[in-house]
Amino acid sequence: MAEPSAPRTTVRRLAERGVYHRAAIDAVLDEALICHVGFIIEGGPVVIPTIHARSGDVLYLHGSPASRMLRSMRSGDEVCVAVTLVDGLVMARAPFHSSMNYRSVVLFGEPRMVDDPDELWEAFTVLTEHVAPGRWADSRLPNQKEIRGTLVVAVPIDQASAKIRTGPPGDDEEDYHLPIWAGVVPLRLEAGAPIPDPRLAPGIEPPPYLTGYRRPGTDG
Amino acid sequence: MAEPSAPRTTVRRLAERGVYHRAAIDAVLDEALICHVGFIIEGGPVVIPTIHARSGDVLYLHGSPASRMLRSMRSGDEVCVAVTLVDGLVMARAPFHSSMNYRSVVLFGEPRMVDDPDELWEAFTVLTEHVAPGRWADSRLPNQKEIRGTLVVAVPIDQASAKIRTGPPGDDEEDYHLPIWAGVVPLRLEAGAPIPDPRLAPGIEPPPYLTGYRRPGTDG
Repeated sequence: MAEPSAPRTTVRRLAERGVYHRAAIDAVLDEALICHVGFIIEGGPVVIPTIHARSGDVLYLHGSPASRMLRSMRSGDEVCVAVTLVDGLVMARAPFHSSMNYRSVVLFGEPRMVDDPDELWEAFTVLTEHVAPGRWADSRLPNQKEIRGTLVVAVPIDQASAKIRTGPPGDDEEDYHLPIWAGVVPLRLEAGAPIPDPRLAPGIEPPPYLTGYRRPGTDG
Repeated sequence: MAEPSAPRTTVRRLAERGVYHRAAIDAVLDEALICHVGFIIEGGPVVIPTIHARSGDVLYLHGSPASRMLRSMRSGDEVCVAVTLVDGLVMARAPFHSSMNYRSVVLFGEPRMVDDPDELWEAFTVLTEHVAPGRWADSRLPNQKEIRGTLVVAVPIDQASAKIRTGPPGDDEEDYHLPIWAGVVPLRLEAGAPIPDPRLAPGIEPPPYLTGYRRPGTDG
């Protein structure tokens, strides 16, 4: 597996937090439910949240053929995809040293339109499985009209970097004696009990992959 | 309070989900811990996660004077700030109709460097209070070196729109009879018990605003 590193993806600030291993990058991409995609429209930056899914060395994004994001991607211009997991509030004694614990990936790449039927099917599969592993096999699978009604792009994962902060705050040496609580408040995305569709056919229980829902890489 | 709506911020896709009321926009900005800022460097889009805080009609962003994001903002070029709250997985019978429940804001604006000492102090205050209301009064407040070492920009909240999806999935009429569970898996950011800094001075208990931590607008 390639270890991507290109000048544009070099983590400039707080370089000690920069991580370039594909395994670390993939873990963040796979755990995060959504990403934020940056692109340029009429000379200005636009950022849109959307679902992503990784398959090997590419990240798939999808949407309506009418979406500005996907239409702009037809041009092949480079996009930036940011994926961020917030793990905790880092409460230092001084606000200047307060921070967040987080894991983030920033990925640059030229999107490629996915046309091949097999690859399209793979993209639909992983986009569903990314959100809820096990769901694809339970679903009423896409028909031709739906396939034609969905635009999919692939962004290669070869200009990416991860940035990770963990652990306690780092205060100025002379502040450690202060009578101020300092430490970390851990945060995580929690799922509640599934809420059935009011039109659910009778006698259908929620599947285990939804009642016990958690993101991959989390311990539940 | 102005009701911002400008051509660039018009929600194009799924326009029925678009919301332009400042109260709705502010609620999303205030609840979300972080934002994703899009800007342009060397002709390409860059997206970076960062903490934001609102004070009235402006959104403050801050960081090191060496950060690429903040240096690029000195130019006054328009940036795009996206703020997203993920509220649930919308599991339709067909993947094509599956979605997320979410509340998001996309804001465009020309950043203004904050130089005025009083406004800088206000920005530092709200940036701390945004993360943990009550923290500022408990903190060792910024000194001159820290103030000089932090760059703050203000982005006006006048070209913003919110996009909100709530409620159950909407499937094709002919799919409702299928023996597939459908509905919503609610999601939210949960805080765990505060973890004390290993170097915490003895006898200091975590304050109530951290032991009972929750984001504003959530019911805990």
